[in-house]
Amino acid sequence: MPGLTLGDTVPNIHVDTTHGRIWLHDYIGDSTTIIFSHPGDFTPVCTTELGKIAKYKQEFEEKGVKLIGLSCDDLQSHKEWIKDIEAFTPGSKVTYPIIADPNREIIKQLNMVDPDEKDSSGNQVPSRALHIVGPDKKIKLSFLYPACTGRNMEEVMRVVESLNRVCKYKIATPVDWKPGEPVVIPPSVSDEDASKMFPQGYDTADLPSKKRYLRFVHVD
Amino acid sequence: MPGLTLGDTVPNIHVDTTHGRIWLHDYIGDSTTIIFSHPGDFTPVCTTELGKIAKYKQEFEEKGVKLIGLSCDDLQSHKEWIKDIEAFTPGSKVTYPIIADPNREIIKQLNMVDPDEKDSSGNQVPSRALHIVGPDKKIKLSFLYPACTGRNMEEVMRVVESLNRVCKYKIATPVDWKPGEPVVIPPSVSDEDASKMFPQGYDTADLPSKKRYLRFVHVD
Repeated sequence: MPGLTLGDTVPNIHVDTTHGRIWLHDYIGDSTTIIFSHPGDFTPVCTTELGKIAKYKQEFEEKGVKLIGLSCDDLQSHKEWIKDIEAFTPGSKVTYPIIADPNREIIKQLNMVDPDEKDSSGNQVPSRALHIVGPDKKIKLSFLYPACTGRNMEEVMRVVESLNRVCKYKIATPVDWKPGEPVVIPPSVSDEDASKMFPQGYDTADLPSKKRYLRFVHVD
Repeated sequence: MPGLTLGDTVPNIHVDTTHGRIWLHDYIGDSTTIIFSHPGDFTPVCTTELGKIAKYKQEFEEKGVKLIGLSCDDLQSHKEWIKDIEAFTPGSKVTYPIIADPNREIIKQLNMVDPDEKDSSGNQVPSRALHIVGPDKKIKLSFLYPACTGRNMEEVMRVVESLNRVCKYKIATPVDWKPGEPVVIPPSVSDEDASKMFPQGYDTADLPSKKRYLRFVHVD
């Protein structure tokens, strides 16, 4: 089933959430927003995930990132389940809204369906999709995990840190990069421009091709 | 642009690779296969990524996982570039095939386009997409990263470890799970069946709802 992918605009749907009825684009506003789905309330992996995301909430806020969850259960279920989430992960407070999608319409529009899983009534359930959406309402990065595999909040935070620096410094981040490690200068930036953009200097790798495309710089 | 997503069958395309011309389904055969794209040869992030993937090749092989890369450069370029990759990441040997897609047809079919990036000729370039495809040729998990953000090979390896255990033990893995940590028993398994499936015993979390859905077990 084809679905929303990188560069696509998320639809401006009107959704019921634990914080009331909202338009998705209004919620995103001018912020980078993480929209993430989970297969079901009162299920094991999801309970561990939503608690961990809640524990990171302050870090996301400091980086200007909003959160919004989604599953196909109803609002009453979401509200009851939050008590379990917070009890299981001490220190977590689920203060982000969770969308209710009992008709399974929103998960199709947001490319959040796990085709291999059904609930006990035989209905489709969401995958563990997580889209990072920019203030322009377009998808910048997506994780599409199946119901069986919980996500990794450190990796989500790592890519948020990368995307923030990409915007700020016009750089890119190499494989396995973590904050504090050097970043790379994209090929679209000439050596001359790089010297102006990065007065702190940069290092160019010496490669067999003798092409000078692998340039590292510290930006924080 | 909609594209291939979880549960979809990857098309059985005939592709030119650094190992010769192959049918994609023949290459996958009976193995879990990681198909990953990179924006361009002789570019910085890609050079760090392909070297790191090559360093993990033995670990992937031990887990029965095949690798195949893809970019829009031609085969001659791929072959020249591999010298840089191996020089930059000591100990790496790029022994996996890399597909050449100079006409930008395959990246569209495999949902590997970065709509925000163009090369110096104004052509579309691939995103950093990485699909984990099962022996049934269907997509089990996808990372869709933009050109600016390098992937994380530890996370790729972590989800491979998760998917392998899911197949073997009929379990699921919680948030941030790593090999050696307890996994969870899915809701579809009754307590009675769980006792038979896991004679080593399992622990059930005590939650405010008093529902007994969060059950942890050690499987290795």
